[in-house]
Amino acid sequence: MTELTHIDTDGNAVMVDIMKKNESERIAIAAGSIFMKSTTLELINKRAVKKGDVLSIAQIAGIMGSKRTPDLIPLCHPINLTSVNLILTPNINESSIRIEATCKVVGKTGVEMEALTAVTVTALTIYDMCKAADREMRISDIRLTYKAGGKSGEYREIE
Amino acid sequence: MTELTHIDTDGNAVMVDIMKKNESERIAIAAGSIFMKSTTLELINKRAVKKGDVLSIAQIAGIMGSKRTPDLIPLCHPINLTSVNLILTPNINESSIRIEATCKVVGKTGVEMEALTAVTVTALTIYDMCKAADREMRISDIRLTYKAGGKSGEYREIE
Amino acid sequence: MTELTHIDTDGNAVMVDIMKKNESERIAIAAGSIFMKSTTLELINKRAVKKGDVLSIAQIAGIMGSKRTPDLIPLCHPINLTSVNLILTPNINESSIRIEATCKVVGKTGVEMEALTAVTVTALTIYDMCKAADREMRISDIRLTYKAGGKSGEYREIE
Amino acid sequence: MTELTHIDTDGNAVMVDIMKKNESERIAIAAGSIFMKSTTLELINKRAVKKGDVLSIAQIAGIMGSKRTPDLIPLCHPINLTSVNLILTPNINESSIRIEATCKVVGKTGVEMEALTAVTVTALTIYDMCKAADREMRISDIRLTYKAGGKSGEYREIE
Amino acid sequence: MTELTHIDTDGNAVMVDIMKKNESERIAIAAGSIFMKSTTLELINKRAVKKGDVLSIAQIAGIMGSKRTPDLIPLCHPINLTSVNLILTPNINESSIRIEATCKVVGKTGVEMEALTAVTVTALTIYDMCKAADREMRISDIRLTYKAGGKSGEYREIE
Amino acid sequence: MTELTHIDTDGNAVMVDIMKKNESERIAIAAGSIFMKSTTLELINKRAVKKGDVLSIAQIAGIMGSKRTPDLIPLCHPINLTSVNLILTPNINESSIRIEATCKVVGKTGVEMEALTAVTVTALTIYDMCKAADREMRISDIRLTYKAGGKSGEYREIE
Repeated sequence: MTELTHIDTDGNAVMVDIMKKNESERIAIAAGSIFMKSTTLELINKRAVKKGDVLSIAQIAGIMGSKRTPDLIPLCHPINLTSVNLILTPNINESSIRIEATCKVVGKTGVEMEALTAVTVTALTIYDMCKAADREMRISDIRLTYKAGGKSGEYREIE
Repeated sequence: MTELTHIDTDGNAVMVDIMKKNESERIAIAAGSIFMKSTTLELINKRAVKKGDVLSIAQIAGIMGSKRTPDLIPLCHPINLTSVNLILTPNINESSIRIEATCKVVGKTGVEMEALTAVTVTALTIYDMCKAADREMRISDIRLTYKAGGKSGEYREIE
Repeated sequence: MTELTHIDTDGNAVMVDIMKKNESERIAIAAGSIFMKSTTLELINKRAVKKGDVLSIAQIAGIMGSKRTPDLIPLCHPINLTSVNLILTPNINESSIRIEATCKVVGKTGVEMEALTAVTVTALTIYDMCKAADREMRISDIRLTYKAGGKSGEYREIE
Repeated sequence: MTELTHIDTDGNAVMVDIMKKNESERIAIAAGSIFMKSTTLELINKRAVKKGDVLSIAQIAGIMGSKRTPDLIPLCHPINLTSVNLILTPNINESSIRIEATCKVVGKTGVEMEALTAVTVTALTIYDMCKAADREMRISDIRLTYKAGGKSGEYREIE
Repeated sequence: MTELTHIDTDGNAVMVDIMKKNESERIAIAAGSIFMKSTTLELINKRAVKKGDVLSIAQIAGIMGSKRTPDLIPLCHPINLTSVNLILTPNINESSIRIEATCKVVGKTGVEMEALTAVTVTALTIYDMCKAADREMRISDIRLTYKAGGKSGEYREIE
Repeated sequence: MTELTHIDTDGNAVMVDIMKKNESERIAIAAGSIFMKSTTLELINKRAVKKGDVLSIAQIAGIMGSKRTPDLIPLCHPINLTSVNLILTPNINESSIRIEATCKVVGKTGVEMEALTAVTVTALTIYDMCKAADREMRISDIRLTYKAGGKSGEYREIE
């Protein structure tokens, strides 16, 4: 049976020892959405034709948040991310904004947590900027959608 | 029509000026869930009888993450949180863990973002610790459930 | 003769003791400029009609940097900024962008360093984003332009 | 025509993907000055014969600030600096202190921003420590003076 | 019997709720020592007549470390320190350096942890700067020596 | 005679230049103890059968603190730790808890400071959680116990 790698047999937290692992090119993609009132999405879209809009601020926050992953997640290894890319796509039908983050590294461990952190910080920043207009926003469906590199091989979300 | 308070009329980002606002006791409660395979939840529950289990580590991460909110969310004001409290409740029927964070402050601005950040960092930490066993976990339904204090008055999520 | 307040009579660094000082409303304005090739300024201006342009990213970085002042400047007191505002003004004649930061707090100490830090982080971010096109950019004339609140009274730069 | 590498064709901020770049030895030197009243420079120089003087504190702040570059500059990659060196030279004729920072790394990207950040945090710290004696100090002429390593080759400031 | 205030009756970590506590002037003093070879202490003392010596660098690190206390200690409240003061005293007889930190705040909670963190970061920095000359240094006797303010009253170490 | 590597011949602080050093597998082990009243140790042990106990929270804090070493210690190089492991052992005879930290990296510089920082942050966190019950706790005997890798060879504490 699969075991939790971050807890040892005595129940202690463990930052998994990756010293002997090979460096390889690794990529992870995570996604999620923030759902809101249609009037809130309209407000965001109205601003999106000007500089300094909600989405570009949230995108910057997500990139910066991704770099803070080892400060936030106790057992994450510090790594030198080689790329963080965020795509924010308003969806008028769902009254939501879809957030997708792609992270890359050449290293001994994967970048799933960096991609997931990028998505959540982006979503939280959208929430912050719109909360005076809409307190009922909801951040959902944050998950890993793709992963490659490392010995565990490729993973692709079953849609 | 309600406007976005964090963008000025020229489209610039704004850290809202709260200098003239009164200090008051403020509270915010946020909640969310992480959904997983039933076998993953079993692994977590098996460990929960020992020290150092997944949930207590995630709880600590959430409390610490809450304190980093102004570092992560660009337009959040730095504040002196007087309390962060996190309750993690496994739900076997849903195969999920529900996370609820309560933040308090005596200050000029609310603590919604601190509560929401606490929930998301807690969920991300659970993800990190279980990802070797389950890559399909999903973080969802993160939202504000209660808010009091400040001039905008009490807010309670309609369930 | 005026003495350095941050060094004691034995030559030790001192975080000035402000416990007995009264809280008051304080404001500081700092300014500075980044000079560049005219073609670089054109590139920035071309992008400024789209979202995600150089200036709005630099503005966000400046606001976030301002909040990190006590982490960066050894003897600065941690404070709860109530406002950070940044205005970026391209100047085609000088081939420069002027950066002005206004910081406010209700506290026992001034916010000059927060305003100056906001200006410099904004300028550094512009440099970073344009450095592939122009390595000769120059950040200059960073100084305090206005200060009010506290017992030392109002200060206004002599132009 | 040269394009801005940190903005994609849709106007989004981009942390440039460096995964495929080779690691090489890289060096960057940046410089700048802080100008002050002659009496302020005298105060600094008087202290410089004792331990704990303004310049050594500012130098430490600059080294530490350099390590925070990826936390401050949104699209900078986290890197493992192998060296930061700061030289502070009082100039009595100009009534200024010249600051020069040299940063080195073995990596996939250059260290210009780390050197520029070291210079600015050093200058800001001098400002902070002397501001009770002199509010009119001015930080100027911050620029890259030398760069080597990486595919773009050597750069040397034209004096 | 006295109970642990940071663990609730279910065993969860708790950031103690201080919202209803009064603000008062609080002070804490902590002390500790780093013991080393006599030749190491001589090296430090030799440098102490020049600028940039080990002790002044360690002192700056201790002040900055004190400000990071809520980032490091999970259940510490963020506070606005009004003063941090560090005194480093070489003791030739013991071949040690004694470190004493005094922290002050006007707030709802004490500053013991800030003073203890200042002492330990100072000691660690001395260790770092001398470790090439002496690997056997030992950091010891870190404890609270004085505390005043707040409802628990004055505490003074029994010597 | 051995010289201090972190101070140059002019007395300036130096982040030692490691660019030309080879990468190698490095390990460091540090240890220390926190001494307390026997009743305090009993309180900790009583909780240790439940989740969220003092020791597991302190262990997490130590792991996270270890990752912050280059933020805290001025002249430490940023590195990508591949492992941090903490063992906490209550000692009823001494009325203490012994803390041992093992850090590993593949890099150009050792991880002594990371191991020592892990031990001290762990000890400080125990202090914080128990301070309402015991103000007389004492953190002592923090030292390097083992080191391997790098050109200086293996070091083992003489017991």
